[in-house]
Amino acid sequence: MNAQSLLHDDKPRAETLKARYARVRDDTLFLCATLAPEDTVAQSMPDASPAKWHLAHTTWFFEKFVLGRDPDRTALHPEWHYLFNSYYQSAGPMHARPQRGLITRPTLEQIIDYRHQVDERVLAMLEHGVDDELTSVVILGLHHEQQHQELLLTDIKHLFSCNPLEPVYMELARASGARAQPLRFLDRPSGVVRTGHEGDGFAYDNECPRHDELLHPHRIAHRPVNNAEFIAFIRDGGYSTPTLWMSEGWQVVQDEGWQHPLYWSGDLASEFTLSGRREIDPYAPVSHVSFFEADAYARWAGARLPTEAEWETLAREQPVQGNLRGRGLLHPAPAPDDDGFGPVQLYGDVWEWTSSPYVNYPGFRPLAGALGEYNGKFMCGQWVLRGGSCVTPDDHIRASYRNFFYPASRWQFTGIRLGRDA
Amino acid sequence: MNAQSLLHDDKPRAETLKARYARVRDDTLFLCATLAPEDTVAQSMPDASPAKWHLAHTTWFFEKFVLGRDPDRTALHPEWHYLFNSYYQSAGPMHARPQRGLITRPTLEQIIDYRHQVDERVLAMLEHGVDDELTSVVILGLHHEQQHQELLLTDIKHLFSCNPLEPVYMELARASGARAQPLRFLDRPSGVVRTGHEGDGFAYDNECPRHDELLHPHRIAHRPVNNAEFIAFIRDGGYSTPTLWMSEGWQVVQDEGWQHPLYWSGDLASEFTLSGRREIDPYAPVSHVSFFEADAYARWAGARLPTEAEWETLAREQPVQGNLRGRGLLHPAPAPDDDGFGPVQLYGDVWEWTSSPYVNYPGFRPLAGALGEYNGKFMCGQWVLRGGSCVTPDDHIRASYRNFFYPASRWQFTGIRLGRDA
Amino acid sequence: MNAQSLLHDDKPRAETLKARYARVRDDTLFLCATLAPEDTVAQSMPDASPAKWHLAHTTWFFEKFVLGRDPDRTALHPEWHYLFNSYYQSAGPMHARPQRGLITRPTLEQIIDYRHQVDERVLAMLEHGVDDELTSVVILGLHHEQQHQELLLTDIKHLFSCNPLEPVYMELARASGARAQPLRFLDRPSGVVRTGHEGDGFAYDNECPRHDELLHPHRIAHRPVNNAEFIAFIRDGGYSTPTLWMSEGWQVVQDEGWQHPLYWSGDLASEFTLSGRREIDPYAPVSHVSFFEADAYARWAGARLPTEAEWETLAREQPVQGNLRGRGLLHPAPAPDDDGFGPVQLYGDVWEWTSSPYVNYPGFRPLAGALGEYNGKFMCGQWVLRGGSCVTPDDHIRASYRNFFYPASRWQFTGIRLGRDA
Amino acid sequence: MNAQSLLHDDKPRAETLKARYARVRDDTLFLCATLAPEDTVAQSMPDASPAKWHLAHTTWFFEKFVLGRDPDRTALHPEWHYLFNSYYQSAGPMHARPQRGLITRPTLEQIIDYRHQVDERVLAMLEHGVDDELTSVVILGLHHEQQHQELLLTDIKHLFSCNPLEPVYMELARASGARAQPLRFLDRPSGVVRTGHEGDGFAYDNECPRHDELLHPHRIAHRPVNNAEFIAFIRDGGYSTPTLWMSEGWQVVQDEGWQHPLYWSGDLASEFTLSGRREIDPYAPVSHVSFFEADAYARWAGARLPTEAEWETLAREQPVQGNLRGRGLLHPAPAPDDDGFGPVQLYGDVWEWTSSPYVNYPGFRPLAGALGEYNGKFMCGQWVLRGGSCVTPDDHIRASYRNFFYPASRWQFTGIRLGRDA
Repeated sequence: MNAQSLLHDDKPRAETLKARYARVRDDTLFLCATLAPEDTVAQSMPDASPAKWHLAHTTWFFEKFVLGRDPDRTALHPEWHYLFNSYYQSAGPMHARPQRGLITRPTLEQIIDYRHQVDERVLAMLEHGVDDELTSVVILGLHHEQQHQELLLTDIKHLFSCNPLEPVYMELARASGARAQPLRFLDRPSGVVRTGHEGDGFAYDNECPRHDELLHPHRIAHRPVNNAEFIAFIRDGGYSTPTLWMSEGWQVVQDEGWQHPLYWSGDLASEFTLSGRREIDPYAPVSHVSFFEADAYARWAGARLPTEAEWETLAREQPVQGNLRGRGLLHPAPAPDDDGFGPVQLYGDVWEWTSSPYVNYPGFRPLAGALGEYNGKFMCGQWVLRGGSCVTPDDHIRASYRNFFYPASRWQFTGIRLGRDA
Repeated sequence: MNAQSLLHDDKPRAETLKARYARVRDDTLFLCATLAPEDTVAQSMPDASPAKWHLAHTTWFFEKFVLGRDPDRTALHPEWHYLFNSYYQSAGPMHARPQRGLITRPTLEQIIDYRHQVDERVLAMLEHGVDDELTSVVILGLHHEQQHQELLLTDIKHLFSCNPLEPVYMELARASGARAQPLRFLDRPSGVVRTGHEGDGFAYDNECPRHDELLHPHRIAHRPVNNAEFIAFIRDGGYSTPTLWMSEGWQVVQDEGWQHPLYWSGDLASEFTLSGRREIDPYAPVSHVSFFEADAYARWAGARLPTEAEWETLAREQPVQGNLRGRGLLHPAPAPDDDGFGPVQLYGDVWEWTSSPYVNYPGFRPLAGALGEYNGKFMCGQWVLRGGSCVTPDDHIRASYRNFFYPASRWQFTGIRLGRDA
Repeated sequence: MNAQSLLHDDKPRAETLKARYARVRDDTLFLCATLAPEDTVAQSMPDASPAKWHLAHTTWFFEKFVLGRDPDRTALHPEWHYLFNSYYQSAGPMHARPQRGLITRPTLEQIIDYRHQVDERVLAMLEHGVDDELTSVVILGLHHEQQHQELLLTDIKHLFSCNPLEPVYMELARASGARAQPLRFLDRPSGVVRTGHEGDGFAYDNECPRHDELLHPHRIAHRPVNNAEFIAFIRDGGYSTPTLWMSEGWQVVQDEGWQHPLYWSGDLASEFTLSGRREIDPYAPVSHVSFFEADAYARWAGARLPTEAEWETLAREQPVQGNLRGRGLLHPAPAPDDDGFGPVQLYGDVWEWTSSPYVNYPGFRPLAGALGEYNGKFMCGQWVLRGGSCVTPDDHIRASYRNFFYPASRWQFTGIRLGRDA
Repeated sequence: MNAQSLLHDDKPRAETLKARYARVRDDTLFLCATLAPEDTVAQSMPDASPAKWHLAHTTWFFEKFVLGRDPDRTALHPEWHYLFNSYYQSAGPMHARPQRGLITRPTLEQIIDYRHQVDERVLAMLEHGVDDELTSVVILGLHHEQQHQELLLTDIKHLFSCNPLEPVYMELARASGARAQPLRFLDRPSGVVRTGHEGDGFAYDNECPRHDELLHPHRIAHRPVNNAEFIAFIRDGGYSTPTLWMSEGWQVVQDEGWQHPLYWSGDLASEFTLSGRREIDPYAPVSHVSFFEADAYARWAGARLPTEAEWETLAREQPVQGNLRGRGLLHPAPAPDDDGFGPVQLYGDVWEWTSSPYVNYPGFRPLAGALGEYNGKFMCGQWVLRGGSCVTPDDHIRASYRNFFYPASRWQFTGIRLGRDA
């Protein structure tokens, strides 16, 4: 089984926890199959992490929070905990994030060995049966691992983009030539609705509790903004018109010299992808834009971004499917089923910036213990994104899923769906 | 009439626009009465501005947006516009904000002369009568001026605090020895309410439109957190317990070495005030805390900050009065009328941090033209504060007033009122 | 007596120490005669200091090192010492240099009063007669004051250049239209020579001891490089040819975007002067160039900079006269006496960068006590300049005088004299 | 043959150029024998380079300057030249130095393959015979390679020191327990001497031309300062006494919190070495001190650093032997032959800081073409060091060799030999 086949694999949904553990953990390794050991060391910016660190940190998570439940147990590499704790202050001190690229040891091989040792022990526990609490932590750990799978891909893309040789992560198919229909705004209901996680399935603490939200009269676009539309914004002087931008965003545009989305060539013709440099598809959703760019585009277009409650209410009506990682493109593509009525592409392709700052829901309670640091402490200065992207694992997205990034971040597959007051 | 008498002056409410213009403009000058020309030049940090700049910028505002309505008019000092435009991109280019402290010319005397010239012309226009649109701009200009009056005082306080000699801005009375009652949480109604500006009075665009908000079940504290309570937080290790803090706030605590509110001495006994160094009053509301500190305190106290809609709904029930600038203390003080039932001190003393990120209301429309840059473009990364402070002009605050600052800002008179889920 | 007459004043050379003290101290005040209080506060960069600080620091020097010899004496303003100590670690702690612009109090008036009080006391001491040791310190203090007079002018020039209004410090005459002769290289002797301070006159410790130096065969240009010549360098791509530059200098050129000397307009036609913006005189010595630019120019010209020993050996043969401050131009000018044989302009006009890093002479002994910090501790990373400039007091320069600045500094009147291996 | 045996290898001196080429090139690879691919990627600070980069850059040097002499030749990897040019502006544009750690491709294996391909071609050229000019370039390339061998070791040491796991580069023997004798100062002749490179052997351009220097009366210590002596300086408050330091050095001490040499533990008991953490040997020369520390120590000891001419004149009298890389310790050690008369340890152990800023010799001519950038453009702001260290190849050092580093640099094996005025 090679990495490409993994991407196209159809996941069984009714698998045991043990099978699921094995599958998700293996996925991470498969994603590294085309990487040289050298590729797994470097950290291209403080926001990103080395692939080797992702491999180790996700394993530390299981050792710390699953195997660590046994008080008599000896840690496998106690001296590594300091290196591979990300931000759990309650779980002990940690290495400075921007220095992750200097940790050449343990080597990739040692970390893969560490993964195997932890996996062996966790699988043995699962074989013997675990209580509900531990089951929850294992499931959380698997979702955590899947989040890091997405980051691993976007971090590698960023790292490779810093190399003038523009290495190819994987030669992947391009989407066939679907075309986008003219953008339509869908009428939507307003009033008090229930949002947030519902039911028995897994959700992060930040999706809870289920609660009331008040929707004001609004409409939402049937598909994301595409590259051709975004090029029109650029050609119309979008990046040189300060009144289109948040004040802080305008400052970033000036400081960073932004003139187009990340990874694009200056002539707006090609972009760096996980398959190397490729021609820009006018009908594919624009990607690698920051909140600032999404917000400025919306203002230029006489629209606004939808709120997360508006988005979620619409998405809840749609099946969770789309150009997710399993489709094997690892790049946004035009919707094959865009008949102009939609909605299309709510899931997959690009994370969609909303107009909602990332804060807690009313009645929010973080998880107990160190895992309470998972989400709550980041509820400041970031914005909510919804819907997953072309590198999100297919079973890792849902209507209530709240992703969040700083408004200047562009290295994720992030795009734009417009909304409007009705 | 000296500066101190100004502070105690009882303002007539039914004054003509002309009288009001004269009064507000004079207030700004009176606030500078104790300053040497040297004091009006320096800029102690990028967030602050020199007093001389405030004097000039507020005058530029009237020259640009009021006198400038006459297309045949010759600008008084066209070359000054570049220097005294703050952030109105539509109104022309501007001098870099962090360099404001290098502009020693025009001198204070020249700027006061400029004020007089502009005032003479505006008053002449008002004498002849102006249309509704221009009336609105004049009123906006006066509120703008009053905002800068508050900034002028907080900027001078910061500047003087940077001088090891700790100069006194003005010798002011201390509040008499009122005591604070134990903190109570008031029961509050929930459900859909109307919030935002209502009626004919002045409001900024960001307070509009009046709209529905959904209040979840909650309670609100009857008074702000006081210094004694905040000292208990400090003594309990509040500044050294990372799990109490937003991740970004914890970073600031580390980077800046915060161990107490701004202006406090290390022994928690005294604080720098506009009257020089003074003993800390345990019953006065804690002030000069950032959102990060307010949020960490609330978490430590098992509470949370109220949302801006919760705050506004409560405040709308109360008369707009309190320890505002007119009381002449220029420092927070215990509420003389705290009977333990309250609510007290919603207006004045300290701006109260809310849990609401500063974003637009549904249906928000910025003002037309350059004035549309007044508020909207700052709706990113800041948090809403409510209620005014001890340096807010008495006629410059109302229930719907939305102030906003970055979460690490501490140089305003900013404090904490707790809220709770019910 | 006004400031301009001061500049043209013919100084009596045989004055008493008391008369000299009074003259030099008064000079500093006269230099501030055209400044508003506002102008004396601001600090335009860490290298520069506010005029008010120069006035206070030079006074502190006399209070500390002259009046302070009396152990029973009470300091006039003990709390100011922290503010106005520059870098004498042995004399107590000091305020951070980059924060000097925030010290609005004491005011200019208070500092002038402080000057008068210290002057009164020093003059009373001098009246009663002082011992040789104290005489030396007073003389050192006066030379120190004269150094700060030069800095005061260059710092004000820099500050005013940061103001888009380009204020005029003083309306001064321009030099009459002398022309420069073609550059000639003078033949010079080589071998072991004596250099360094000689005789009974005043010298800083860094000019001592008199000692042997070995001159290698060389020649020196008869006059400094002028603006026309430097423009030829610019037009020939001097600022865009990396091989002409020291590696570190090239970095600065890139980082700072240097394309011409400081204060020049982009079209190479005008420059900002102490009299405001003026046309560039092609025959005046080029000024406000860094060591990096001087060194690159020399390389481009197939020459090199002279060593300080080469320079001093030549200068010792010449009378100490030239376009110094007393000539009242405060700007470099063509030599009226340039007959093409020279040498001309060794003294005055511009400080001439040498190829000598600033290190101690063999057998160097710093002064005892805190005054030992005057020079020695800066002998790292700086380069020697010789000859004084158009803002150097006439009685403050001599053949052995060693000035020193970092190689990227440009805000002094610094220029280029070429040398060559013979 | 393994890496350790290499270090002890006794090099034949009368080898052919071809044999020498093969030997030096192989040495570089052998030095990497204990490194994982991961170790060769990371760049721990802008001053350092990844091992992989050293391997590639030294190869690029031969491809560019040796193979590149053939105008008809096709470059092996033309797109790599941008990545592996260090600072030769004349040889084309180059990748930003601080970003070297992000270049994960080409991989280590590809670079080793590149080395083999270039070696094959160069050896073929040498087989056929080359002219004198090319011979010179090959020899220059080999010395260049040896410089990078030393950097490779010091860069790896620094990188590993950044890893809390403190990896071991190689388990090496410790020196046997020799003791140091009390420090003596040797009487030395003064007057005009000849210094600089002499004879037919290889030398860099910066060692030329041979020329006269004037030595002032002086003495030089018979051995370097050792750890015990340096600890006495620390215990006497050396790092907290500002008057011992250059002003710029004191700033660095404050900013960086220096309290002891780089790599030492806070208790002054152990240090990080290429063999991991080891106890400090009191009799070994102190190492990893900056110029600032060397200069402060000398001042504390009532001495000074020798000039480079003083050092060279003494060293020329001594055989070129000592604790160089061939001894296989890769760490400074007490001199086995210290009888208290000396001089000992002029060569090897530690590079000795001199009091001489790094500038050109009189009559200096850089090499023609791009190779002229090798040395001359760095003659600003750095200080000369002499004598080689415990990681310098045995055949890469001589009396006239001038090394140079910035005064705050500490990651090389740099130490202190005292001098004195006589």
